Amino acid sequence: MKTAYIVSTGTELLIGDTEDTNALFLSRKLATLGVRVVGRSAVGDNDEMLRKAFAMGFEVADIVISSGGLGPTIDDLTREISCEVLGVPLIKREDELARLKDYFARRRRDMPVINEKQAYFPPNATVLDNPRGSANGFMITEKNKTLILLPGPPREMEPMFNESVEPRLKKMVGQDGGVTISHTVKAMGPGESMVETMIADVMKDPEGCSMALLAKEGEVWVRVTRYDNDTVDAQKILDSVINRIKDGLGKNIFGEESDTLPAVVVKALAEKSLTVALAESCTGGLVSKLITDVPGSSDVLWGGVVSYSNDAKVKFLGVKPETLERYGAVSEQTAREMAEGIRKEADSDFGIGITGIAGPGGGTEHKPVGLVYIALADKNETRVKELSFLGGRDSTRILTAKSALDWLRRKIIRG
Amino acid sequence: MKTAYIVSTGTELLIGDTEDTNALFLSRKLATLGVRVVGRSAVGDNDEMLRKAFAMGFEVADIVISSGGLGPTIDDLTREISCEVLGVPLIKREDELARLKDYFARRRRDMPVINEKQAYFPPNATVLDNPRGSANGFMITEKNKTLILLPGPPREMEPMFNESVEPRLKKMVGQDGGVTISHTVKAMGPGESMVETMIADVMKDPEGCSMALLAKEGEVWVRVTRYDNDTVDAQKILDSVINRIKDGLGKNIFGEESDTLPAVVVKALAEKSLTVALAESCTGGLVSKLITDVPGSSDVLWGGVVSYSNDAKVKFLGVKPETLERYGAVSEQTAREMAEGIRKEADSDFGIGITGIAGPGGGTEHKPVGLVYIALADKNETRVKELSFLGGRDSTRILTAKSALDWLRRKIIRG
Repeated sequence: MKTAYIVSTGTELLIGDTEDTNALFLSRKLATLGVRVVGRSAVGDNDEMLRKAFAMGFEVADIVISSGGLGPTIDDLTREISCEVLGVPLIKREDELARLKDYFARRRRDMPVINEKQAYFPPNATVLDNPRGSANGFMITEKNKTLILLPGPPREMEPMFNESVEPRLKKMVGQDGGVTISHTVKAMGPGESMVETMIADVMKDPEGCSMALLAKEGEVWVRVTRYDNDTVDAQKILDSVINRIKDGLGKNIFGEESDTLPAVVVKALAEKSLTVALAESCTGGLVSKLITDVPGSSDVLWGGVVSYSNDAKVKFLGVKPETLERYGAVSEQTAREMAEGIRKEADSDFGIGITGIAGPGGGTEHKPVGLVYIALADKNETRVKELSFLGGRDSTRILTAKSALDWLRRKIIRG
Repeated sequence: MKTAYIVSTGTELLIGDTEDTNALFLSRKLATLGVRVVGRSAVGDNDEMLRKAFAMGFEVADIVISSGGLGPTIDDLTREISCEVLGVPLIKREDELARLKDYFARRRRDMPVINEKQAYFPPNATVLDNPRGSANGFMITEKNKTLILLPGPPREMEPMFNESVEPRLKKMVGQDGGVTISHTVKAMGPGESMVETMIADVMKDPEGCSMALLAKEGEVWVRVTRYDNDTVDAQKILDSVINRIKDGLGKNIFGEESDTLPAVVVKALAEKSLTVALAESCTGGLVSKLITDVPGSSDVLWGGVVSYSNDAKVKFLGVKPETLERYGAVSEQTAREMAEGIRKEADSDFGIGITGIAGPGGGTEHKPVGLVYIALADKNETRVKELSFLGGRDSTRILTAKSALDWLRRKIIRG
């Protein structure tokens, strides 16, 4: 199995002004390609530290991949130092110089003299095109060590990796005989430890695959990765493990890979030509925001009301003043009337009503911060759930919104 | 000036399953303390790579600070290897063993035998308490090199740094004679290059301070950092630079340091006892969500309508069917009627109406994707702005929402 070392350059990383999203992106990509990342380094635009980082990389890994420092200024040293450490010269390429001049000409500017150094590459390097900036990258293998240089801005680096590096690495790794595939299933409902219990037999015997659980905002993702010498075998075993996980988690699984809960709900509604309308109090428009994040949601979302005041609840949703008086704005009864009220106004298939105390203020002994009521109404019935969250305002709001979406998802599936 | 090297440990980092938020947190903290981070490394739970990372750290920096690998399992090697590299022994501390036993007793469990290794520390180490987990950290200085070990989970590591490491580092850096202070001002309205132009004279002569511009979701942050030997001088010079920036950017500045635009708007409304109500179409509840993110927003937000369908616009906001017919849902006229309609229903001081084409579908030649109308109504008048965004659905929605909030902010300031 090929190994890699990632070098991120830029002083802004070291003072924490910029997140090192490049390292994360490259780590994920390389893992998917079946290249084992043995270490990562972030260094400033500094001769000595760059030298040490590249030396370390070539010492411990087959592939050193770096981002940043390919610009035209004197701070941009990555090109010179990495090549020096690898022991390859840099020569001016006339075709690259012409490309640079053209790059500036298209922007109606003369190429500044300092940019000329961006036309220097090792003699046998494969130039990696950068359609989004002046800095092309390159890739070169010398004495069994591969050096890959990419520019720093993620909007240039990421597409360059996808378009130019990934296919070449795939080939290189393929020659190595190995393949890595992975698959993620996403569950909503049970917590992380409950998921672990539900798939305990798979965790105990993952058929040689590696498994990772990731809990985030109420969701639990299970990722299964398989390294194998044989593509067909790898896929067969991965499928078998995934199916065992699906058996264990059942309807708690809302999606796979890049699926999001709101997108799954929008799709489920659209497939059955169903519509929903929302009455949100403590979530303040968050459910609506999540649904309308999804392109095409206008086909299934009639709209909603953010009934932050009692006045809005009465005026738009027809909640009875007596209900508010007798049971309070945060109550099963109010949630029910909100859901029924918005469904009636919208003439939609589903109505959702949400009321609760997100905090930090507003809690009482009988109605503590974190208490939430969600009501779901359809043409037959209205049901209300009482939930209780302990994680603070932001966490309560997002978990409430996602609980509501997940409830709707399960309702649509049941039909 | 003291230098530091950060080592993050954990195989999950290298496959990109986990973001290295510890490295970012520590980078920011150390920069604020006036410690210069010369490099960072992430390595797996692997003997050889851990050894190389710590050796590199002690070679290039005064302080090596690491997170992760202090647990009880055989994978947890950070303690043993870092001490070996620094050349200090580990001995069992009876008080720490007692603490561990107590830790488990309080959880009604016997301490597993494997946890005993968490009671081992170098003889002269300062133990760093971890109230949130079983792994205490430590700090030790040997031959002018300081080693600081912290646990991996951010919810344990971050408070430990704040409570136990920061005061000790401050003292250590103080002995070094230097101080670092920084301040951030936040602007909304002009883009990054416009901000650069508006404060060109400060950028050219920052009085020895370093300046960084950060653009995010329509906001531009200007951060000024000052390293100095004298605390009073440092503050005086920093204040002078900040004042020059404030002069240059004027009303475009909405806040400083940890201020957020929604919180600033909520505070401004509350201070003048003003209220707002929202009618959102293409932003689908996003403005409402941003406002209700702020605790206490119920005092200033009456509520709102997410009028995703024409039906909702007519029913709840009183938009005239003729207006929709004649000018379309995305038009100056509809935005105006939405803002006026919601203000009337809510009897609020301000009404905001937003309609647009977030995309990717729905655009036409005359009304392309990214076209947005925002209307702001008060008791005297209604104004409408036409905006145009090119960055895609998510970007259009967030920039629209923040433009609306910023417009409201400026209106409140003007009175």
